Amino acid sequence: MARVSQEHLDARRRQILDGAARCFARNGFHGTSMQDVLKEAGLSAGAVYRYFPGKEDIIAAITEGTFDTIRGAFEEAARTTPPPTPDALLRQVLGGLLAGGVWGLERRAFAALVVQLWSETLRDERLAALLDEGYTAMRGLWAELVDAYRAVGTLAGDVPSDHVARTMIATAQGFILQEALFGDVRPDVLEGGLRGLMAMKTQKTG
Amino acid sequence: MARVSQEHLDARRRQILDGAARCFARNGFHGTSMQDVLKEAGLSAGAVYRYFPGKEDIIAAITEGTFDTIRGAFEEAARTTPPPTPDALLRQVLGGLLAGGVWGLERRAFAALVVQLWSETLRDERLAALLDEGYTAMRGLWAELVDAYRAVGTLAGDVPSDHVARTMIATAQGFILQEALFGDVRPDVLEGGLRGLMAMKTQKTG
Repeated sequence: MARVSQEHLDARRRQILDGAARCFARNGFHGTSMQDVLKEAGLSAGAVYRYFPGKEDIIAAITEGTFDTIRGAFEEAARTTPPPTPDALLRQVLGGLLAGGVWGLERRAFAALVVQLWSETLRDERLAALLDEGYTAMRGLWAELVDAYRAVGTLAGDVPSDHVARTMIATAQGFILQEALFGDVRPDVLEGGLRGLMAMKTQKTG
Repeated sequence: MARVSQEHLDARRRQILDGAARCFARNGFHGTSMQDVLKEAGLSAGAVYRYFPGKEDIIAAITEGTFDTIRGAFEEAARTTPPPTPDALLRQVLGGLLAGGVWGLERRAFAALVVQLWSETLRDERLAALLDEGYTAMRGLWAELVDAYRAVGTLAGDVPSDHVARTMIATAQGFILQEALFGDVRPDVLEGGLRGLMAMKTQKTG
């Protein structure tokens, strides 16, 4: 077998995953066969099986890659000091994810892929383990951010950082769902809506 | 055929839907056959087909029933004047949904069923239409609530009510997802987390 560069291998791997992501976003995991993936990626069986022995391996790679992308978007947005407040941060993270052409997908198709990953995870232990690991890391990062809010005086009170982190993550998840279902999520809706919530008086402190 | 009371018909219909919901939560829509539903509900084919000609009709009925339940939980929570602030309200809605034994399901199984409905909706036009209708009604109700916040001075500023409503709904959706995936959502996490967010200073007004 001829030697090929790492660059070539990476590009080929990417080509397979992009093709698979298009199939999954369109027809779901169960509605997609390895044959569909080969056709969509424009590659021979030999070329694909060299990288991924089965559909499950492709799904796992897409799950990991999607998490890396989401984590990257968050780290990019949280980098400034002091960190952007939740409304600005979530606008940036969600805006980046939905505009970024992850797996070469249109924004709504990417959101649909994520929703299908969630659903598939409920019946696939390998995926569940991957998701659990990615989510735990994400929660830790977001909780550190909430600690930073506290350090600079943006957040007062003794609400556990993890609870605020989970709530911010829930908001982002809900908007990804709304984009998948309705295709009409603009990041400024999230930013404005969250700013409105943050400007409300709470029952105990208001 | 012997005459039967409306009460009997309703109970039988309910028995079918509860059985189907258990199957769907466990194995998904694609992994469940009508045969599985008959077995789970403990009924004959004749008894079931009289109510639902096919699996699609059962899925549609469960979608409608689930929306009615969520709407009911919201209306129940929003009834007081002045309305509870978002942190208290979402705690009550989510707490009620997850504790209520909807379709006779445990909380995590109910959350899993909802996530699967979302995913199925992406490829089923009939479900998509039902979801769209339910979601539009929900958005309207929540936006009215945000108007009420404004009227009593809980919300200042000119953020569109619909944006705040969508953000509140997104938070609830994200927590339903987290319950399905991880089974560890306590309503006080949502309440505390949201209260923390609401107590933060925003960049423009802080």
